[in-house]
Amino acid sequence: MTLRVGVIGTGMIGKDHIRRLTQVLNGVEITAVNDIDQSSAEDAAPMGATVFETAEQLIQSEQVEAVVICSWGGAHEEQLLACIKAGKPVFCEKPMVISAEAAIKVMNAEVAYGKRLVQVGFMRRFDADYRRLKKVIDEGSLGAPLMYHSVHRNGQVPEGLYTSDMPLNDTLVHDADISRWLLSDEISGVEVRVPRRSTQGGELRDPVIVLLHMDSGVIVDVEISVNISYGYDIRGEVSCERGIAALPNRPATIITDQHGIRQAIPEDWRERFIEAYDQEFREWISAAADGGAIGPSVWDGYVSTLTADAALRAVEKGTLETLDLIDKPALYQQH
Amino acid sequence: MTLRVGVIGTGMIGKDHIRRLTQVLNGVEITAVNDIDQSSAEDAAPMGATVFETAEQLIQSEQVEAVVICSWGGAHEEQLLACIKAGKPVFCEKPMVISAEAAIKVMNAEVAYGKRLVQVGFMRRFDADYRRLKKVIDEGSLGAPLMYHSVHRNGQVPEGLYTSDMPLNDTLVHDADISRWLLSDEISGVEVRVPRRSTQGGELRDPVIVLLHMDSGVIVDVEISVNISYGYDIRGEVSCERGIAALPNRPATIITDQHGIRQAIPEDWRERFIEAYDQEFREWISAAADGGAIGPSVWDGYVSTLTADAALRAVEKGTLETLDLIDKPALYQQH
Amino acid sequence: MTLRVGVIGTGMIGKDHIRRLTQVLNGVEITAVNDIDQSSAEDAAPMGATVFETAEQLIQSEQVEAVVICSWGGAHEEQLLACIKAGKPVFCEKPMVISAEAAIKVMNAEVAYGKRLVQVGFMRRFDADYRRLKKVIDEGSLGAPLMYHSVHRNGQVPEGLYTSDMPLNDTLVHDADISRWLLSDEISGVEVRVPRRSTQGGELRDPVIVLLHMDSGVIVDVEISVNISYGYDIRGEVSCERGIAALPNRPATIITDQHGIRQAIPEDWRERFIEAYDQEFREWISAAADGGAIGPSVWDGYVSTLTADAALRAVEKGTLETLDLIDKPALYQQH
Amino acid sequence: MTLRVGVIGTGMIGKDHIRRLTQVLNGVEITAVNDIDQSSAEDAAPMGATVFETAEQLIQSEQVEAVVICSWGGAHEEQLLACIKAGKPVFCEKPMVISAEAAIKVMNAEVAYGKRLVQVGFMRRFDADYRRLKKVIDEGSLGAPLMYHSVHRNGQVPEGLYTSDMPLNDTLVHDADISRWLLSDEISGVEVRVPRRSTQGGELRDPVIVLLHMDSGVIVDVEISVNISYGYDIRGEVSCERGIAALPNRPATIITDQHGIRQAIPEDWRERFIEAYDQEFREWISAAADGGAIGPSVWDGYVSTLTADAALRAVEKGTLETLDLIDKPALYQQH
Repeated sequence: MTLRVGVIGTGMIGKDHIRRLTQVLNGVEITAVNDIDQSSAEDAAPMGATVFETAEQLIQSEQVEAVVICSWGGAHEEQLLACIKAGKPVFCEKPMVISAEAAIKVMNAEVAYGKRLVQVGFMRRFDADYRRLKKVIDEGSLGAPLMYHSVHRNGQVPEGLYTSDMPLNDTLVHDADISRWLLSDEISGVEVRVPRRSTQGGELRDPVIVLLHMDSGVIVDVEISVNISYGYDIRGEVSCERGIAALPNRPATIITDQHGIRQAIPEDWRERFIEAYDQEFREWISAAADGGAIGPSVWDGYVSTLTADAALRAVEKGTLETLDLIDKPALYQQH
Repeated sequence: MTLRVGVIGTGMIGKDHIRRLTQVLNGVEITAVNDIDQSSAEDAAPMGATVFETAEQLIQSEQVEAVVICSWGGAHEEQLLACIKAGKPVFCEKPMVISAEAAIKVMNAEVAYGKRLVQVGFMRRFDADYRRLKKVIDEGSLGAPLMYHSVHRNGQVPEGLYTSDMPLNDTLVHDADISRWLLSDEISGVEVRVPRRSTQGGELRDPVIVLLHMDSGVIVDVEISVNISYGYDIRGEVSCERGIAALPNRPATIITDQHGIRQAIPEDWRERFIEAYDQEFREWISAAADGGAIGPSVWDGYVSTLTADAALRAVEKGTLETLDLIDKPALYQQH
Repeated sequence: MTLRVGVIGTGMIGKDHIRRLTQVLNGVEITAVNDIDQSSAEDAAPMGATVFETAEQLIQSEQVEAVVICSWGGAHEEQLLACIKAGKPVFCEKPMVISAEAAIKVMNAEVAYGKRLVQVGFMRRFDADYRRLKKVIDEGSLGAPLMYHSVHRNGQVPEGLYTSDMPLNDTLVHDADISRWLLSDEISGVEVRVPRRSTQGGELRDPVIVLLHMDSGVIVDVEISVNISYGYDIRGEVSCERGIAALPNRPATIITDQHGIRQAIPEDWRERFIEAYDQEFREWISAAADGGAIGPSVWDGYVSTLTADAALRAVEKGTLETLDLIDKPALYQQH
Repeated sequence: MTLRVGVIGTGMIGKDHIRRLTQVLNGVEITAVNDIDQSSAEDAAPMGATVFETAEQLIQSEQVEAVVICSWGGAHEEQLLACIKAGKPVFCEKPMVISAEAAIKVMNAEVAYGKRLVQVGFMRRFDADYRRLKKVIDEGSLGAPLMYHSVHRNGQVPEGLYTSDMPLNDTLVHDADISRWLLSDEISGVEVRVPRRSTQGGELRDPVIVLLHMDSGVIVDVEISVNISYGYDIRGEVSCERGIAALPNRPATIITDQHGIRQAIPEDWRERFIEAYDQEFREWISAAADGGAIGPSVWDGYVSTLTADAALRAVEKGTLETLDLIDKPALYQQH
């Protein structure tokens, strides 16, 4: 009853997922690998896996029951469409696609197929802390959520490689997706404010404050810093009518010494979300083995794309930019 | 070497200050009391204190070396001008005055007098937690402040008496003043966003999010809730270039029981700031005994008035409203 | 490369390990099951697994490469000896055996075999919090450990079934083993003090305070409560020469409401240590696949037995009872 | 209505109390000062205070309504007896006296006088954190207290001056007194255990663990470290039948930086207990102005002396040493 999986893309994240699928999780076997760099694919391929020359061949292969896409974003559209055509469950890393048009094309294909096949890689939804937080909100004793303060602090970004648009189209999408999921809500508009610039990142536009206006009226204020230097620090606090619910500190030894009473914080996203990634794939394996998908959907990938676009317009113009979403297909109503 | 003080206004806050000045603090004696309701003044007057028929008479009296104004806001302008004219140090509760024009008039009088006589009642600046926070920021090892998240949660407000403008012209002024002081910065503009309304307060505009744009570029986001029901909860977190500094929880027994590991929070502002009020007056007594004033000045009262006005315009129009401050007189440069 | 495992004992803990080995972990397959209650074994057996009539048969079977023992303590000695005779790696739940003589017999057999085959089920050593705590201690910047305060609080115990000896021979062993491991030390003596009795447990001797005297001179004071009612609360704090290191609270949503600022605590040991159990078996599978064993050894099981015996004598007599350990065989020096 | 106070002893603690009584508190005036070193007394005397040649003269003086004793412990007995003879309220620093016999002599004098005049300087009882903790215990919802873990960590002690007996006869008395007060209980016996020695203090016996056996059966385990180096760290946790109540961290800015999420701890006892000292004298002034005394009594000083004696015997002999208290005079029943 082992799911035979093909992995497309063997860069850093692809290699990490191969490790996860072969060494950590059960019920799964990697039978096929592909990368535009054939030698990278050969290095990364676990024993017994076939290295395919093209992603298309891997997707078509009878050795492959389900696909994991870790290629670069621009290639996802074609690969997702091929998976859907082949009727094969597929896990796709972020960004799902790189334009609203591409997202709609993939959505139409999946809707035509009549069943969800695609799971998009928003791993925060699988994090135990966020899940407990959502449970508290959903349980309702604190009343309706009114505001959500989402803090996203990253130790450092590679100088030169990381541009001023990336806090908005790369980093923000995590806060945006988790806000929608946590609050069972939808984003209707985006504002961006740019505070005093940190000297830690040279000319980089850092930090930024983003206000997400939700359909319900909830306002999410997102505080993004990408060069905070001390570690990777993800916080979230939901203000409800009669109480507050917040993410806890990560578990860490409480040391008391000359620096005070203190707890270390995670160094980077790998340390912070390692268990969330494991759980994300655990649930994907189970759903894919049943021929389907759960968790973040093509719809979520579509909204994510529009949110990033709106944020980039908003920072440029200083205005509130609305998301003009298409009608949500019935296929995504339950998710 | 005891400072002889006259108190104008013997309502709730006036009575509390009389208690403080007679029972808690030393180096001070209440020699005179006045209220528009003479019988209230007589009830509140400590033994040996004279009850004056008018505020003017109290201010003029030789029994009075320094004045505490706790009358209603509309009366402050005239009383402050009388104190300055008499050259007597004066502590004035918030709001200092109720219009920018009145503030400028008082400022001009004090500038003409050539020396500070007026201390305005922003008690947060005397709170030990805020003072430690400022010390950490000023010390500089975390780098420059970039954002400040100020949370102001109030248990409940009296239905009917508390109007939708009050979070902006009554509650916000505390966050605005503490932001200016904490960051050694000035407010240049105000935006207001109105999230989903809490059902705890009927039609009240609650909560509100206020963005204060500071001269340095720092953005302060203020989260105001006035009917949060669980207690009085004041939080503040400064994001700097290389680290974060935040107000701690108030000291409270750590109980572990069926509700979890938990600490009570203050019931109301009296409980939260009782020591700050004591300290505020301790320092006022000392400054007044030297014939002057320290802490929040007429300039601070003036900016406070303009901030509230701007917030009210901003919530009406949805725009960023700027503060058009007059040039800061030299008298207030050091403060 | 899948490890074929036989499970002896299909009671509550046996069933949970079967779930773990089939649904959570990879690299392992359950091929054989046995229980003194044959129908229980049949119910618990995963598809494809053979149900053996006797433990002996299961251990001998060619289908079985490694064994998990979850039978009752009295049966362990014979089963462990059979595993060692067969040269098969074996995981054995607590208590390893029920007398010092039995422990020495098993130890002699393993020493004669010349290689570790037995891993004893002290799961705390695999808990991420304890591992981080040990790392801080071992790193040495806090100086040598001097005292360890170990708190063991259990929600409730079944009335009638749980006797006054059990805090000392069942519960204490976890604190004792983790102390030895955390401090890289050995227990030399045990004292027990009995405070005022809790009315929560009727006539039960609860709580108890145990002082473990370690070879290095470190004193461990263990606070055991078994009917604390509010949850399952495990705490530990090591006092070193220049600082303190302590277990953190478990991650849980920080709720602020009418009960204060609070975090839930685990309900029971399953919730608290679920990940430690997973990790324990993850490492066992890896070691067993290599034909050996890691983690808690027969020596640790032996010391555990002597500690419980000493504690029972100590509570009876009120004295400091020493552990008269045999010389530690070379096989266990590195562990 | 100002209380005229004479201060005996103008060493470090005497000077600090003079500062407190003249600069911080109201309702009090220092009219007389004495020290065996006349020039020290002259330096310390506030303006207008008379410097007396002997303690006896100061106590007799008509300028003195109440006395503060800060001389060395050996002188207290005679000075206390003189105060009682003169019928003057007296605050006496620790140790009240230096032998059980002396304590009983003072007690007999006060009982003969028929009314409490003496308040002993156990300032922890006036600390807000301890008071809140006691309130939680007394309120009763957690059930009866069963164990109390009292941690007393001191940054460093002066080498050479601080001897191995001092953790037991100087430091322990604070934990012992606060345990009696917190639990409304009495000490019946004392055990001492000496863990591995810290290298921070050379040959000093440090740390020590003390077990206080209370009349109710509650066991208090006290952990004393006097050279912990990182600061002054006082902790306390009461284990009750259905829950736990503990002292909180002291309020301190929460900093997040390369050292983690952290809060500073107090440097020394002055910083930790400064407000408790103020409150202690605030309540003493009020009681003394009424001609009496409240808070820690001669009885408490007597028990404190016997506890230290028992601890010194216990550490010597390794036994449980009992306190053979005389019958408690009716005068002290309510306190």
